[in-house]
Amino acid sequence: MPAKGGAKIPDVAIVGGGLIGLSIAWQCAQRGLVVSVFDDPRERGASEVAAGMLAPVTEVQYGEEPLLRLNIASAKRYPSFIGELEAHTGVDVRYRRCGTLMVARDSDDNAELAEVFAFQQTLGLEVERLRSRQARELEPGLAPSIRGAILAPNDHQVDPREMLAALRMACVSARVTLTDERVTRIELDDDRVTGVETVSGIAPANKVVLAGGAASGRIEGLPPEVLPPVRPVKGQLLHLAATGMFGVGDRNIRGLEVYVVSRTNGRIIVGATVEEMGWDTTVTAGAVHELLRRAYEILPGITELRFVRSLAALRPGTPDNAPLLGDSSIEGLIMATGHYRNGVLLAPITGDRIAELVATGAAEGLEAFSPDRFVKGAVA
Amino acid sequence: MPAKGGAKIPDVAIVGGGLIGLSIAWQCAQRGLVVSVFDDPRERGASEVAAGMLAPVTEVQYGEEPLLRLNIASAKRYPSFIGELEAHTGVDVRYRRCGTLMVARDSDDNAELAEVFAFQQTLGLEVERLRSRQARELEPGLAPSIRGAILAPNDHQVDPREMLAALRMACVSARVTLTDERVTRIELDDDRVTGVETVSGIAPANKVVLAGGAASGRIEGLPPEVLPPVRPVKGQLLHLAATGMFGVGDRNIRGLEVYVVSRTNGRIIVGATVEEMGWDTTVTAGAVHELLRRAYEILPGITELRFVRSLAALRPGTPDNAPLLGDSSIEGLIMATGHYRNGVLLAPITGDRIAELVATGAAEGLEAFSPDRFVKGAVA
Repeated sequence: MPAKGGAKIPDVAIVGGGLIGLSIAWQCAQRGLVVSVFDDPRERGASEVAAGMLAPVTEVQYGEEPLLRLNIASAKRYPSFIGELEAHTGVDVRYRRCGTLMVARDSDDNAELAEVFAFQQTLGLEVERLRSRQARELEPGLAPSIRGAILAPNDHQVDPREMLAALRMACVSARVTLTDERVTRIELDDDRVTGVETVSGIAPANKVVLAGGAASGRIEGLPPEVLPPVRPVKGQLLHLAATGMFGVGDRNIRGLEVYVVSRTNGRIIVGATVEEMGWDTTVTAGAVHELLRRAYEILPGITELRFVRSLAALRPGTPDNAPLLGDSSIEGLIMATGHYRNGVLLAPITGDRIAELVATGAAEGLEAFSPDRFVKGAVA
Repeated sequence: MPAKGGAKIPDVAIVGGGLIGLSIAWQCAQRGLVVSVFDDPRERGASEVAAGMLAPVTEVQYGEEPLLRLNIASAKRYPSFIGELEAHTGVDVRYRRCGTLMVARDSDDNAELAEVFAFQQTLGLEVERLRSRQARELEPGLAPSIRGAILAPNDHQVDPREMLAALRMACVSARVTLTDERVTRIELDDDRVTGVETVSGIAPANKVVLAGGAASGRIEGLPPEVLPPVRPVKGQLLHLAATGMFGVGDRNIRGLEVYVVSRTNGRIIVGATVEEMGWDTTVTAGAVHELLRRAYEILPGITELRFVRSLAALRPGTPDNAPLLGDSSIEGLIMATGHYRNGVLLAPITGDRIAELVATGAAEGLEAFSPDRFVKGAVA
């Protein structure tokens, strides 16, 4: 079916204009492809709420080594990705190589940090174990009760909202078509994708990338065995602001239950809850209370900060906490979703590898993240 | 000096368009006076932030019996005042005769409640002492750990923002001139008031009522001994909202350190800090944390409520916590300020009595609140 007005059918339609969708779109356009992105800007996705901590080392989990390798590869790609993005747009996305300090509130926490540290060492990660006094020398705002810490010098931060704005600009410059409409359905013809449907009608495309975050799991048009097993996982966080009297430290600071990210513009993010609440995005008094309590335990001066607002968004969770990246069993339909808590961190490598897959039909290093891995009878 | 365009010089200019200033203005206009009110609507005063608890009985303090009598007189005036206001404007100001339940978190609190209850009884106030189970039968949302309570059936609530809106409408209907400019100076000619100065120039008036809340203490133009000893006392509070799962009880509920006011529109107010911070109105993370913690101790279900926002404003504090009501030593200059934590409650009686004073030169029952009582050598 020819497109209206004889315009060329896009090589690829991307469902979702968050950090993942836009990174893929931009990288596809850089490879000479004709790209359309669809998203409703009124729907606030996880990218707009995320704190932007880039912390593969301090977030490492037992049993998730393939994800760790992908996270680290993306963290290494960050400087060049941001460099290109800033060169194309002039936007300062507040990428800061600040490092992260993971602290123990009490001796129980410190015992847990010792285990985490041992695991990080077996993985060959760059970490340093600090005593309480060493940690407080680095970050004088830490509570005197802190028992110990791990310094991860390569866990950094970025401002996801600025990065979104920059990616939108970069996409427009690269002639990506951005359509401010949500995709309601993916159009198939037998086992082949043919385009996407929005409120304005059907937009044909040769390939489709599903990068819709939490909403990916309820997109219409796909057979049940192809629909990605992505569920919404609610996260709430707080925005505080430095006042004349007090600023929080230079590094990302995290306890076992909370993290505090200080941006260069004086904004301080306290995050984040992890809640299985379906599609609910209510900002609750209980979450505000808990986040402030936990932050106060490690950084007591937080009480002097200005309270700006609280926010909530839905992460795209998956059964094994790893994303779905690669071809689906529908010809031309590629998955790039389920990034759970790692969406900001994984945007550069997802952009690179999925664009490569769209352009060439192949991409390296995505085997462990095959969308088929959850299908019954599939070989892991 | 004739006013511009030959318009009549107002009988009275009122400095401040909060609940106090507008109540006076409306009552003056009802008595046939020509009235001007001056306020900058961009400056958010205490009236716009107040929770609107009308609680003379549960807020009673030792040594403040004259203030208690004035508070009770104003509480008794409330139904007719609101009735007239709603009849004139059609605005529902959410006046609710809900009663207030004062609860003890633990046995220390309960010992304190016993003393408060004994004091309330010596004053002849209508109060009822409740056991924990009785309190929880009335308000099932109370924490099981509550040790006891006092029910004050005549401590009610109103929505101060709706009341402000209604008073503005009532004033406009009654031909009060509302000028959206802050008074920068009170104009005197020897020992007589002649008008007020705003950014637009001097507005002459035969009498001036200073009803500027916390800002009354730094108005220009007055000799030091006349300037009211009013200081800003910061209060922070939270707006929460009922969700499908949970609403807080029907009554005002207060502990010794926090109160929770549920409006009929589902809004729930948690207040309030009392802070001596000068002119600072920063909303702090520490206050949000403390208010939520204290509310949670008596109403644990509060965690399920939606967090809407936090606010701060400045109450007009005075050396003895009582307002300054009546003639000053400057002819034609009347004080109606320093209402501290009782501004919403005292608006009706302040409106009545100060309007009477403006119209007739005399008013009953204000002796204890004479503005001169703080002047050195004055007889109490």
